[in-house]
Amino acid sequence: MPAMTERFVHRLRVRYNECDVQGVVFNANYLVYFDVALNELLRAALGSYRALHDAGLDMLVVEATVRYRAPARFEDELDVALVPEPLGRSSMVCHAEITRDGGAVAEGRLVHVFATLATQQKCEIPNWVREKLDPWTAATPERAR
Amino acid sequence: MPAMTERFVHRLRVRYNECDVQGVVFNANYLVYFDVALNELLRAALGSYRALHDAGLDMLVVEATVRYRAPARFEDELDVALVPEPLGRSSMVCHAEITRDGGAVAEGRLVHVFATLATQQKCEIPNWVREKLDPWTAATPERAR
Amino acid sequence: MPAMTERFVHRLRVRYNECDVQGVVFNANYLVYFDVALNELLRAALGSYRALHDAGLDMLVVEATVRYRAPARFEDELDVALVPEPLGRSSMVCHAEITRDGGAVAEGRLVHVFATLATQQKCEIPNWVREKLDPWTAATPERAR
Amino acid sequence: MPAMTERFVHRLRVRYNECDVQGVVFNANYLVYFDVALNELLRAALGSYRALHDAGLDMLVVEATVRYRAPARFEDELDVALVPEPLGRSSMVCHAEITRDGGAVAEGRLVHVFATLATQQKCEIPNWVREKLDPWTAATPERAR
Repeated sequence: MPAMTERFVHRLRVRYNECDVQGVVFNANYLVYFDVALNELLRAALGSYRALHDAGLDMLVVEATVRYRAPARFEDELDVALVPEPLGRSSMVCHAEITRDGGAVAEGRLVHVFATLATQQKCEIPNWVREKLDPWTAATPERAR
Repeated sequence: MPAMTERFVHRLRVRYNECDVQGVVFNANYLVYFDVALNELLRAALGSYRALHDAGLDMLVVEATVRYRAPARFEDELDVALVPEPLGRSSMVCHAEITRDGGAVAEGRLVHVFATLATQQKCEIPNWVREKLDPWTAATPERAR
Repeated sequence: MPAMTERFVHRLRVRYNECDVQGVVFNANYLVYFDVALNELLRAALGSYRALHDAGLDMLVVEATVRYRAPARFEDELDVALVPEPLGRSSMVCHAEITRDGGAVAEGRLVHVFATLATQQKCEIPNWVREKLDPWTAATPERAR
Repeated sequence: MPAMTERFVHRLRVRYNECDVQGVVFNANYLVYFDVALNELLRAALGSYRALHDAGLDMLVVEATVRYRAPARFEDELDVALVPEPLGRSSMVCHAEITRDGGAVAEGRLVHVFATLATQQKCEIPNWVREKLDPWTAATPERAR
């Protein structure tokens, strides 16, 4: 289990087809990168995204924001960091940050809700999920002490 | 019902994100265009792709080939023509042709098999599907007479 | 020229490959839809996006937000509305709304800056662009009178 | 430098957004995987794809074929092997094979030509490129001795 407040980071390399005529990563692909990193975070925390499905759970994205800082280009290696806020009753808010050699490329914010897979209706985050995700969330002031 | 040997053509416009650093449509996107055209052909013939699903059927792609003739660019309007060969027992072979103002952009060949949706196992093409697709297939010598 | 406060709307049909395992449009693809609609708005206003390039101009996305209201599915016809706010010195803020049969699917907000194509540095929006985009922007209180 | 006849293999993990409603990798994405692997092969052989551009060279895809053997799914780890045939005057033919735990997922064949970057016209493959790619090509009978 990671130390409290360890930040989840997934590294990936920009693919040729992800870049557009301007020679830079097309804006929508940053949401793909966030999604890839989220699935890797779930793999690190829960074993895999499928562990949720096997438990009859799903995650639905409610809101996503990207702020573009500097263009990424073909062959760049990007570090995609995801830090969930302390979990809500049924929702998870993640702060995302993409860097290249430590320099800012993009930032984002993702809001997901947990849902019952069968009904796609919002549900409470079960305790076993909460316990496995907690170590990856940003420390609350109390927990940081 | 279309006249015999009428050729199915779907027009679409190249999207910005479909073009790569070379300023031309990325090679994999031609398979997307073929798929879009196939679904439009199914809509024309059967009402929609969902009509297949509602009947417990699915289509699985077995083989796809693209020959690239001339690059397509952002904002180009492309005509994607699909001509199925006379249907096999369970398979459908389509010849695809993409043109711009009548000039060749790409050609392709797609092989699909029909399958039972629940099992994803190959099945015979039912007669009601066959009858609805027949008018869109290339005429056999006999039928062309 | 459109009447003041006419809202730009582009209709498109959800493609098979845009949907994910959940059977709904993958979250990043809404940014693709916004981009497609923006390019169609530019075509309506300026002739085409290429008109910008021919004038040595480019548009860079600075920030994008999507709020997901209801899932869209394969074969759905979506109306993507884009309403730019009154233009800033160098930036354009658009409000985006995606509906299906009038029902909300997603909303968004896009911030772009205009840039010199050669340098990719922020520049003032030239008057000829401003005049052509103005009719498509949300009316300011004064202009609405 | 690799031993003669060493086979280039690139491993990647299937992303969520690459899978479609059937729960399997969408057919066009196999061409993306081939392209990713080709760029990694060029990185292994030449340093990077950019080394070609810096030398005023480009590669244009002429033909691509995929034969789908077994569906790949979200989270699968795939091995994408690429074996170029002995190089032609200006063209490179690659055999591609995608496996999962050694089992066949897809096979393909890609034909590229080398071109002058500035003109996009076909050109001879320069000797320095030929020498660096040779170790990765399928051995000819003579070379295998």
